[in-house]
Amino acid sequence: MVRIGLIGMGRIGRLHGENIANAIAGATLVAAADPMLNDEMKSWAESKGAKYIYADAEELINNPEVDAVFICSSTATHADFIIKSAGAGKHIFCEKPIHTDPAKIIEALDAVEKAGVKLQVGFVRRFDHNHKKVHDVVASGKLGNPHIIKVTSRDPEPAPIEYLRTSGGLFVDMMIHDFDMVRYLSGSEVTEVFAYGNVLIEPAIKEFGDIDTAIVSLKFANGALGVIDNSRAARYGYDQRTEVHADKGCVKVENDRDDMSEILTAEGTESAKPTWFFLERYTQAFIAETIAFVNAIENGEDVPVNGHDGLMPVYIAIAADKSLREGRVVKLDEVIL
Amino acid sequence: MVRIGLIGMGRIGRLHGENIANAIAGATLVAAADPMLNDEMKSWAESKGAKYIYADAEELINNPEVDAVFICSSTATHADFIIKSAGAGKHIFCEKPIHTDPAKIIEALDAVEKAGVKLQVGFVRRFDHNHKKVHDVVASGKLGNPHIIKVTSRDPEPAPIEYLRTSGGLFVDMMIHDFDMVRYLSGSEVTEVFAYGNVLIEPAIKEFGDIDTAIVSLKFANGALGVIDNSRAARYGYDQRTEVHADKGCVKVENDRDDMSEILTAEGTESAKPTWFFLERYTQAFIAETIAFVNAIENGEDVPVNGHDGLMPVYIAIAADKSLREGRVVKLDEVIL
Amino acid sequence: MVRIGLIGMGRIGRLHGENIANAIAGATLVAAADPMLNDEMKSWAESKGAKYIYADAEELINNPEVDAVFICSSTATHADFIIKSAGAGKHIFCEKPIHTDPAKIIEALDAVEKAGVKLQVGFVRRFDHNHKKVHDVVASGKLGNPHIIKVTSRDPEPAPIEYLRTSGGLFVDMMIHDFDMVRYLSGSEVTEVFAYGNVLIEPAIKEFGDIDTAIVSLKFANGALGVIDNSRAARYGYDQRTEVHADKGCVKVENDRDDMSEILTAEGTESAKPTWFFLERYTQAFIAETIAFVNAIENGEDVPVNGHDGLMPVYIAIAADKSLREGRVVKLDEVIL
Amino acid sequence: MVRIGLIGMGRIGRLHGENIANAIAGATLVAAADPMLNDEMKSWAESKGAKYIYADAEELINNPEVDAVFICSSTATHADFIIKSAGAGKHIFCEKPIHTDPAKIIEALDAVEKAGVKLQVGFVRRFDHNHKKVHDVVASGKLGNPHIIKVTSRDPEPAPIEYLRTSGGLFVDMMIHDFDMVRYLSGSEVTEVFAYGNVLIEPAIKEFGDIDTAIVSLKFANGALGVIDNSRAARYGYDQRTEVHADKGCVKVENDRDDMSEILTAEGTESAKPTWFFLERYTQAFIAETIAFVNAIENGEDVPVNGHDGLMPVYIAIAADKSLREGRVVKLDEVIL
Repeated sequence: MVRIGLIGMGRIGRLHGENIANAIAGATLVAAADPMLNDEMKSWAESKGAKYIYADAEELINNPEVDAVFICSSTATHADFIIKSAGAGKHIFCEKPIHTDPAKIIEALDAVEKAGVKLQVGFVRRFDHNHKKVHDVVASGKLGNPHIIKVTSRDPEPAPIEYLRTSGGLFVDMMIHDFDMVRYLSGSEVTEVFAYGNVLIEPAIKEFGDIDTAIVSLKFANGALGVIDNSRAARYGYDQRTEVHADKGCVKVENDRDDMSEILTAEGTESAKPTWFFLERYTQAFIAETIAFVNAIENGEDVPVNGHDGLMPVYIAIAADKSLREGRVVKLDEVIL
Repeated sequence: MVRIGLIGMGRIGRLHGENIANAIAGATLVAAADPMLNDEMKSWAESKGAKYIYADAEELINNPEVDAVFICSSTATHADFIIKSAGAGKHIFCEKPIHTDPAKIIEALDAVEKAGVKLQVGFVRRFDHNHKKVHDVVASGKLGNPHIIKVTSRDPEPAPIEYLRTSGGLFVDMMIHDFDMVRYLSGSEVTEVFAYGNVLIEPAIKEFGDIDTAIVSLKFANGALGVIDNSRAARYGYDQRTEVHADKGCVKVENDRDDMSEILTAEGTESAKPTWFFLERYTQAFIAETIAFVNAIENGEDVPVNGHDGLMPVYIAIAADKSLREGRVVKLDEVIL
Repeated sequence: MVRIGLIGMGRIGRLHGENIANAIAGATLVAAADPMLNDEMKSWAESKGAKYIYADAEELINNPEVDAVFICSSTATHADFIIKSAGAGKHIFCEKPIHTDPAKIIEALDAVEKAGVKLQVGFVRRFDHNHKKVHDVVASGKLGNPHIIKVTSRDPEPAPIEYLRTSGGLFVDMMIHDFDMVRYLSGSEVTEVFAYGNVLIEPAIKEFGDIDTAIVSLKFANGALGVIDNSRAARYGYDQRTEVHADKGCVKVENDRDDMSEILTAEGTESAKPTWFFLERYTQAFIAETIAFVNAIENGEDVPVNGHDGLMPVYIAIAADKSLREGRVVKLDEVIL
Repeated sequence: MVRIGLIGMGRIGRLHGENIANAIAGATLVAAADPMLNDEMKSWAESKGAKYIYADAEELINNPEVDAVFICSSTATHADFIIKSAGAGKHIFCEKPIHTDPAKIIEALDAVEKAGVKLQVGFVRRFDHNHKKVHDVVASGKLGNPHIIKVTSRDPEPAPIEYLRTSGGLFVDMMIHDFDMVRYLSGSEVTEVFAYGNVLIEPAIKEFGDIDTAIVSLKFANGALGVIDNSRAARYGYDQRTEVHADKGCVKVENDRDDMSEILTAEGTESAKPTWFFLERYTQAFIAETIAFVNAIENGEDVPVNGHDGLMPVYIAIAADKSLREGRVVKLDEVIL
């Protein structure tokens, strides 16, 4: 039984806490911490079985009854909590991204390596039944070598403007999932990128130099080509499709739907909308990534999404941003430290 | 080159005439006849290349330049034209049904057999890419023995009440296609039927004792079970689906659609409607059945839908009608002459 | 917080127990009982938080800390446990069917009524996202009056022959879910049935007079017609489709799939199989029915599937069985007590 | 009745000839020409009703019984035949591309304008039921302004190496259709492009500097972004999908399939393959474009795909080629004459 301490009781932290408490046979929630700790958080943590509840995450990290930590605090704090947790000999699950500064990520990864603990990064989409199927078919080799990797990723509605202002921009906040996805699906590293972007949805984001619509082309070390399109407002739901073309054919996935119905009338044919957003679409994937983390600890195996996997998408995001601003192809070598 | 004479220049006659003139490489339209012959028909027939145009079908039948006749006149005349055409040594394509009276059909089939000419009956749905695929998969044996045969057949809108009044009733006018289809798909003969029917669409048809909605259960000689549902008004288009369950799995077909689009908005997901009606849905099937007929003549092979195939669905329709009226199972043996 | 006692710790009992313990915010598992109680069951029940664990269900029923019971024991015991639970003033969730003998069901329903407790019957499919969508669209009235109700229900593989021998037969063991479904979808009562059945999968079941393949036609009080097809072995997964045709069009649902992938190669196009069986397909529905039960208790509202809903499908099953054996239509009036 | 003269009796020429002879009510094939004229061509042309058959296309162009010409000869000859046909006052349908040299296209368009005849270019995909639906939905304005235009276009198998050697390269030979498509769907002009390409299918094409796999990003005058992916060998059929994301949602089309079947077994779920190649997929579109051309002549209306539409995709192809070779964004202004 892996005893888990949760750092951060915001939306994503509670999601993980609920899963650990209810849906993961091999884990238990023993502690929770949040710098903004209040009665409501305390009551929630107690109801999930946490014996220790802190305002100070370091106390949680140093609690000997905690085997592993889930870092679900704000992005800027991730790397430091990784370093402290590694120092305390705890296994670590960290929400993405580890940091927006690669130097800081490298520092954290070094600490993890030195401590010999496990670090898994929360690229949850790898655990989705659909994208995993695409990956598994490609990885099986039965389609031969990949030629083209395509990822469509579109949020249903834009996040609030205040969130967007400090999000780090579309590439590092949103497309970072897709940069991970193309690495996962292609089984290869991105070597260069070219980015087009525009503000077509929310004019206010122009003020802070962000975009809301983007198409990024990519080149991979294995010769494959890729393309990602992102939008902050699909309006019809969460558009999450992936597609790989290879020597012998292709594998692709459509969106999940709310149900499998069709209503046919003289006016037309109506089917259900794509699942609304990530909480609904990736419900099972959030559970699956935690099971994988717990299993890796219990069986002494490698985690399925490691520190390197946490670092590379940040480099790609930085390269994409540079490409957009300079209007040219950017090679990954230009940005890798 | 098979020289064809067309009897009947109504909607279905012209459809066949157009196909013979334009779409069938091995056939040519040499003659056309219609008892209501008028200038408009003459002009149409000439434009399709017909050299001989008659009011009297017998003149067409006896024209030595005619190798084969297409009987597209009113149902009541089919059997007599078959007998006369057979007598003149012509091959015959006859629209369904041959007749509503089995005794008359048998008389026609006897004439065909005596003359040694070919007779193909116009069960056009056997040539549809979808239903043919279901048939071919079942006939290949790769799914093993069939267990359940399901046919859904629903017209988009009811025919005019005047047409329905003299149509012979839902079973012989409409479901007859489905009685043929279950024989085609199951590869077996129907041994008994049970029919439920009701008037749920057009109250006026109660006056002449017809129904507009029906479910018919069937038993086959090979032990399989079947069910057909019919409606005179699906409203959303022509609902034409078939499905066979067998030892190792099932094969089923969805409706063709006007296009393969999806429109996704906050309001919902909209796709195209099923193809509207038989002229649109079975366009290619009408051509394919004529090619099959012409090939059978040219290669001296059996036609794919013969006189027996024309007779059996009429028996099943009679049994279904008897079942509905008497509220009981009717064995085919009760109605077979 | 509704305190629940679980009677029966077999497969379905544990499924409900897991849900109550982990997935239902308003309920808690306080007690569990099983006549075959062993250490493994005790350990399981403890891990789910049960404070009281019994071999004798009556002790559970009479425990004042139990607000409601879940009856998940063998079918023959359901009615008696209902009567005892009602006598003890407990609310009752009972797995289907209540009993195979309508007289015994009526006795149980009388006890429930007298006690003024709630009784919900476990027709879980009503809570499936797909079938519920069909129901909701029909119930909204936007398609007008229903004409045809179609239910396809096919298990992936036959249950063991020993199970089938004592199952009560296909109609009462398997199709009973579909008899409930047609009532749910049509919003009307079945007035008569006609059943065809055969043994096409497992010859051994002939010995005890059962069937493995069936088509049942139904007539409803509102004039609609219906058809259900069942098979004990679809082979490709759990085939669970429903479809309602009405005045203005139709609503239908396809099966859920393991994922939304397509693999396209020169050999063909491959998509995922339908979800394998009821545990996978109805995972969320099992949770939803328990939430509905708990909410009904907490809010003092009617349960969504009541005792009458538990009784009627048994009558229809009896009528279907009679129809199959006597080869004729059976009116429900013939079998209703 | 528009009297048409056909220049070129190769595959595409005969396709148009067959359609004119059989499927276009308002047109007739009166003449045909081919520099390689042989007995087989003569016999074919006669069977289609051509009264005049020439080796020299100029004789056809100058025949007073010819109202309009179909230029289906080799690409290098298109522009000169346009100039001559315009000089003779004939309306012109010309296969794509008009020429690979924009200067030559401009010369041809000038001649057309001076003569006041109609010129339609054979971008047949605009007449496909699927892509036309995407266009019509976008053009209706009901989705608002377009944000992202996506085109996937993949041939089933590579053309013979000898063909590819002289094809002009992937951009001008194959992706030119897609450059037309993005203009058609976006309702806007392309302002810049960035191209990635590679040789992943047929190493032999490296010898002449071509590619077989490409992803091209595009920017439009209206602010929208676009992406096209091409492959010479999809293997599974002809992959022809388009998709437009806009303010209020998206419209997208899946591939047509050979049929609408599904075969479900324990091994998996199999559906039909996408329609094989352009002759099968665009059968109806080839007829529709000719009907549109004939109607434009008869009604004195504008043709739906004019000379400007013939010129612009050639510019985009030249810019894409330049982008690929120079590894940078290329603005259309750089290549427009």
